[in-house]
Amino acid sequence: MGLDGLNEYWKACCYLSAGMIYLQDNPLLKEPLRPEHIKNRLLGHWGASPGLSFVYVHANRVIIKYDLDCIFIAGPGHGAPGVIAPAYLEGTLSELYPEFTLNEDGMRRLFRAFSFPGGFGSHCTPELPGSIQEGGELGYSLAHAYGAVFDNPDLIAVTVVGDGEAETGPLATAWHSNKFLNLARDGAVLPVLLLNGYKINNPTVLARIEDEELSSLFRGYGYEPRIVSDADQMGAHESMAEAMDWAAERILALREEARAKRQAQRARLPLIILREPKGWTAPKKIKDSHLEGYWRAHQVPLPEVKTDPESLRVLEDWLRSYQPERLFTKEGALREDLRCLAPEGEKRMSANPQANAGGRRHALMLPNPEKFSVKVELKGATVAGNTKPLGHFLKEVMRLNPTSFRLFGPDETKSNRLDAVFEFGKAWMAKTLPEDADEGFLSPTGRTMEYLSEHTVEGWLEGYLLTGRYGLLSTYEGFAPIISSMVNQFGKWLDISSDVHWRLPIPSLNLLLTSVVWRQDHNGFTHQDPGFINAIVDKWPSVVRLYFPPDANSLLWTVWRAFQTSDRINIIVIDKQRHPQYLDADEAFNHVTKGLGIWDFASVHPQEEPDVVIASCGDVPTKEAKCAVEILREYFPDLRIRFVNVVNLFTLVPSGEHPDGLTDREFDSYFTKDRPIIFNFHGYPWLIHRLAYRRTNHKNLHVRGYRENRKIGMEAAYLVPFLKGRGGITTPMQLAIINQIDRFSVAMDVIDRVEKLATKASFYKDRIKDQQIEALAYAYEHGVDHPNYAE
Amino acid sequence: MGLDGLNEYWKACCYLSAGMIYLQDNPLLKEPLRPEHIKNRLLGHWGASPGLSFVYVHANRVIIKYDLDCIFIAGPGHGAPGVIAPAYLEGTLSELYPEFTLNEDGMRRLFRAFSFPGGFGSHCTPELPGSIQEGGELGYSLAHAYGAVFDNPDLIAVTVVGDGEAETGPLATAWHSNKFLNLARDGAVLPVLLLNGYKINNPTVLARIEDEELSSLFRGYGYEPRIVSDADQMGAHESMAEAMDWAAERILALREEARAKRQAQRARLPLIILREPKGWTAPKKIKDSHLEGYWRAHQVPLPEVKTDPESLRVLEDWLRSYQPERLFTKEGALREDLRCLAPEGEKRMSANPQANAGGRRHALMLPNPEKFSVKVELKGATVAGNTKPLGHFLKEVMRLNPTSFRLFGPDETKSNRLDAVFEFGKAWMAKTLPEDADEGFLSPTGRTMEYLSEHTVEGWLEGYLLTGRYGLLSTYEGFAPIISSMVNQFGKWLDISSDVHWRLPIPSLNLLLTSVVWRQDHNGFTHQDPGFINAIVDKWPSVVRLYFPPDANSLLWTVWRAFQTSDRINIIVIDKQRHPQYLDADEAFNHVTKGLGIWDFASVHPQEEPDVVIASCGDVPTKEAKCAVEILREYFPDLRIRFVNVVNLFTLVPSGEHPDGLTDREFDSYFTKDRPIIFNFHGYPWLIHRLAYRRTNHKNLHVRGYRENRKIGMEAAYLVPFLKGRGGITTPMQLAIINQIDRFSVAMDVIDRVEKLATKASFYKDRIKDQQIEALAYAYEHGVDHPNYAE
Repeated sequence: MGLDGLNEYWKACCYLSAGMIYLQDNPLLKEPLRPEHIKNRLLGHWGASPGLSFVYVHANRVIIKYDLDCIFIAGPGHGAPGVIAPAYLEGTLSELYPEFTLNEDGMRRLFRAFSFPGGFGSHCTPELPGSIQEGGELGYSLAHAYGAVFDNPDLIAVTVVGDGEAETGPLATAWHSNKFLNLARDGAVLPVLLLNGYKINNPTVLARIEDEELSSLFRGYGYEPRIVSDADQMGAHESMAEAMDWAAERILALREEARAKRQAQRARLPLIILREPKGWTAPKKIKDSHLEGYWRAHQVPLPEVKTDPESLRVLEDWLRSYQPERLFTKEGALREDLRCLAPEGEKRMSANPQANAGGRRHALMLPNPEKFSVKVELKGATVAGNTKPLGHFLKEVMRLNPTSFRLFGPDETKSNRLDAVFEFGKAWMAKTLPEDADEGFLSPTGRTMEYLSEHTVEGWLEGYLLTGRYGLLSTYEGFAPIISSMVNQFGKWLDISSDVHWRLPIPSLNLLLTSVVWRQDHNGFTHQDPGFINAIVDKWPSVVRLYFPPDANSLLWTVWRAFQTSDRINIIVIDKQRHPQYLDADEAFNHVTKGLGIWDFASVHPQEEPDVVIASCGDVPTKEAKCAVEILREYFPDLRIRFVNVVNLFTLVPSGEHPDGLTDREFDSYFTKDRPIIFNFHGYPWLIHRLAYRRTNHKNLHVRGYRENRKIGMEAAYLVPFLKGRGGITTPMQLAIINQIDRFSVAMDVIDRVEKLATKASFYKDRIKDQQIEALAYAYEHGVDHPNYAE
Repeated sequence: MGLDGLNEYWKACCYLSAGMIYLQDNPLLKEPLRPEHIKNRLLGHWGASPGLSFVYVHANRVIIKYDLDCIFIAGPGHGAPGVIAPAYLEGTLSELYPEFTLNEDGMRRLFRAFSFPGGFGSHCTPELPGSIQEGGELGYSLAHAYGAVFDNPDLIAVTVVGDGEAETGPLATAWHSNKFLNLARDGAVLPVLLLNGYKINNPTVLARIEDEELSSLFRGYGYEPRIVSDADQMGAHESMAEAMDWAAERILALREEARAKRQAQRARLPLIILREPKGWTAPKKIKDSHLEGYWRAHQVPLPEVKTDPESLRVLEDWLRSYQPERLFTKEGALREDLRCLAPEGEKRMSANPQANAGGRRHALMLPNPEKFSVKVELKGATVAGNTKPLGHFLKEVMRLNPTSFRLFGPDETKSNRLDAVFEFGKAWMAKTLPEDADEGFLSPTGRTMEYLSEHTVEGWLEGYLLTGRYGLLSTYEGFAPIISSMVNQFGKWLDISSDVHWRLPIPSLNLLLTSVVWRQDHNGFTHQDPGFINAIVDKWPSVVRLYFPPDANSLLWTVWRAFQTSDRINIIVIDKQRHPQYLDADEAFNHVTKGLGIWDFASVHPQEEPDVVIASCGDVPTKEAKCAVEILREYFPDLRIRFVNVVNLFTLVPSGEHPDGLTDREFDSYFTKDRPIIFNFHGYPWLIHRLAYRRTNHKNLHVRGYRENRKIGMEAAYLVPFLKGRGGITTPMQLAIINQIDRFSVAMDVIDRVEKLATKASFYKDRIKDQQIEALAYAYEHGVDHPNYAE
């Protein structure tokens, strides 16, 4: 069967897409179309659907012809009908959702279920088999595609990039992912730029530049582009078939070459630019307005069909133009001779196990973190880099899992002190120079992926996880907000997908936020931002976890645990610099497992009921809080202080609201029912109130943390003269004092809040205040902290 | 004076840059270098500094030669020394900061002030004259540059794009800004891609592809690229001077052509690719490690100089290699014959008034919003589109301010119902087709700027504001988080710049968030996100304002007020659909001015002390809350209900924490000291607790809002069977009920919380619950809400 059959298969897809948008009954148009056959509310988008189906059916053709292993990634927004249609026709839908039988009745149900409460959405949501990219928020298709094919040598991700999507930043920079793809070990991406010319209400930029400029752009991106652009449909089929053959053969040849050669080389992957009319196959005009090939075809092209007989007539003509009676049997099944145009079993893109967590869960081999732990001679006095041991741990994870674990980051792996992993190289397929052999060598087989687009590395990691492999992304805390919307969209995917009965769990997204807000000594104000956690803390409790390990060993166990979870977003916040160490390996394991704990070694008279609770969360605030205890111990040896450290932030939430939340009884057992609590927190102080405001002792909770409102509301007015350069360049101690998370402020808070200290309060407070001002003044004069306060 | 002089001027910049990083004394090296001359802490980045100065001095040359009007935009991170140095040499620094005199003493002070607490930061912060782009978070330089030159016909933004920065998404897509630039009315951008080859720890992608590929990429982006790449420094000067002459002449010729012609045409702007070694002019190697031309030159190349005599010797040799005694007079001033190499007065890029809010504040001409207001026949019964009148208002703003106001958005102006502005066209310089004459026509002089990169349009607007003009950006609420980090960085700029004594205030950043979370009927879960406000609410109280106008007229006054503010970020959240209208023009003015108000018309027995307060914030929650009052009035006619509507969210915060905050007495006068408050909120409910947790009556505050944790903690267990497709495709009423902001849930909340209703509570609650379930069931069956609940 030649391209005529393919055209008919495609027309069947187009018919189904239109049916999903308009019809709730009379699915095969056996009767004349009447208003009651039309849905009450017309939702969905026609614009990109025919183009998506077009690429899909042509991919089917080459899958069969060359026996390829492909997944389909739909970039354009709202194109779901164009992908649901072939998934239905090739039978996957009814295998997973028995109600969508391949007959008239199933078709009616499918039409009705689309864009209907409880049914399929208008993007490629997790409920749609074969999908690993929803596309509600545009821009991530290409990065997802590359992530999916890394270490997946046989896979080809046929990736349709919308020309609207192509205008987004994340997509524009993801084209360069080809500098990190090694065909000798990785699969390939076949990008199809769908140039349908319009967004919601505007032409797209790439559709309105000359062909030569367009080709030049993609050659500059390192691809070999070919433009498919034919006015008539059969011509388009011919050109597209030819282009797909060329692309498939090119990929196979490049792959063979890469695997035969000993010297890996960057491949110029083929890229197809498909110029087709927006809303292809819709009526050309309705009344006096352009439709096919214009932005009006973006959404529902004929919104008045239920009420306007003229529109209804146009719709009926349009639907009948596909000749459903020719495409489908009387019973509503696809015509038998067309069925062989789709591949079978797992070769169907809608049933490819790669798009369902890679088909089965491969456990990650994990070394024992104890082997990498820091020896803590004296709690709080031993000093070590917090992240360095993790680098050694991750290196071992790489050794044990040579094809299923990668480390991702924008360009900060070394800065974040994880550079032990460089023993396995950094992935790099562009040109190299002799000096690249220096530490952290670039290699075609490197396991660390660095590219200065947070969006792209996050997208790579998501694609890698969605196909069942493991990873961790480390980034500066201050720049994590760059990807907060992207992580948010991934969280939405996880929240839904973990409830889809046939979806396998995927390894969790692990984000290490380091170079934290408190240590931006030379980076200044722009690098200070603990806001990422605020953007994520309100989200799905089944998905999000927030960890603030206080030291190197607790970080090791936190990551070890995170790697064993599924369908989660684990956010781990810790600084990269040298800091006091508190817990040996065993203690760290227990502390991380419980999520919080009372530290007797940092408490005073720990066996007695406390006068006050000093709590901390985050490494820098923990250090300052602990030093505050030392100050208080010296001045008020009788004061009973309980020291609580929190690793898992969600322990603070009531147990009914988060699976990790403590019961009220448990919470009270740590924080008491009536003693003052001074809580020294890593981020914005409000966050602790937001988590704990229902707790018994909330009225006594006093939180310190990072504050942006230093111009007003400064409680310690005597600090104001020091607010020069406000947060620009600061020493660590200055920044702590300005935000009042420093040892002195915490100690003074305690004195203010414990009644029995009232008589001696002002005397000792003045002494502490003097020390604080002295520390501040020293830093302003010398540009460094006094040696007493360093590390 | 030829290029030799320029080279020496540049060397003086390099010397000063190195001095800023290392020296606290002995600035002219009059004595042998000793450890005490070295700063205690070495901070700052050498890598990009020499390249930045190189471009700066070459820009100076063409400014003088062609009498150009230029500003300098530094994209690379941490390059401040390379920009501070020429600003100091040309005298601007000492004009604004008298301590930095142009002599030995001033130089010592400058060296010490750099990257020192209270001094200059290592980015081009607001304290640096001539800067409109800090560059701490990378990627925004090019969008800022284009924004600055729109409607600025004489201006040329010399824009250095770092090759690290070029890997970010926002930068990668901003290249296409040239499709929106009309040289007939706009200035020009001269991009210089600084290809120094390295980021922190990796080569850059663009430095490791072939020259031909690189040129092809930029031709594809629509530029005319020229590569400057010379091994020796004088050769580089010659090539750069030639390239700058070519670029300047090309821009002037294109400009002249554009202004002479009647037919506007997209211009291929010149672009210079400057390939130079990272850390140019630093030692080639130190010990066995590569330095100049390698990533090790990124930050402080010789970190051990204070303690290691060998390093100190290398540093001294390096510093003396610039021959400071030749470049500077004995007194420390730049050699007299070099001074003429910088332009004078406002031609100096560091003193160009364009980079300081355009030099002076041009007031925006504003029409009276009353002219555009909706006539409210019956409060709550009159229905109108909330944003449509604003479109007409904005159209009038465009008419009154033809060269100082633009509207920005990704592609949603029409979708957001602001399309009345299209009378003035949409800016577009790429190809046009006959059908573009359809509504919303594309035009070289269009005043609406649409491009599907939220980053780019936000960057354009920022650049436009920073040069003293006005604008508004409208975007879907659900996708505003894409730019939350960018808005955050802009807020940091405003927070600092508004305190810099010589900076003029700039017009505020106005963001209209519409197509809100509650009306995603066909877009589904991915489009539901009220999280942007959470990412910004914790920030600088002097900068951020959050408004939730309840209807069309209050939106008009909110925008009218926002346009009259400076140095702020005004975030305005309102839906675009048809909704009930409550306030006539006068009432809306008063309501918006106060920021909140008691609505007697929506209250029951308003003249009496209330039994309960029902509060609302946001249009959809207000509608539902008001309908709840109707239900309660019917069942409990004696119940005294006070209805409070909040427009300005920060009124809820104590007055000590935010300038718009109410005093506790004021707050109590609205919300009472002891009555139950049911607060129906637009966003995450926690936010209201976070703002109001210190208020007297907080214990009685019960908040409803958007919730992500629908899987657990669902209070209304009887709703669980309806949680199909959880938030995917929903009708408005379904989404309200699922999140319990619907009229029924609010009414039941009131019944639960008002003691005097206890006796009849269960009877009426059951009736309400039945109505609620009926509404939900109807929507699931018909795919639309029952007509009773629509609009």
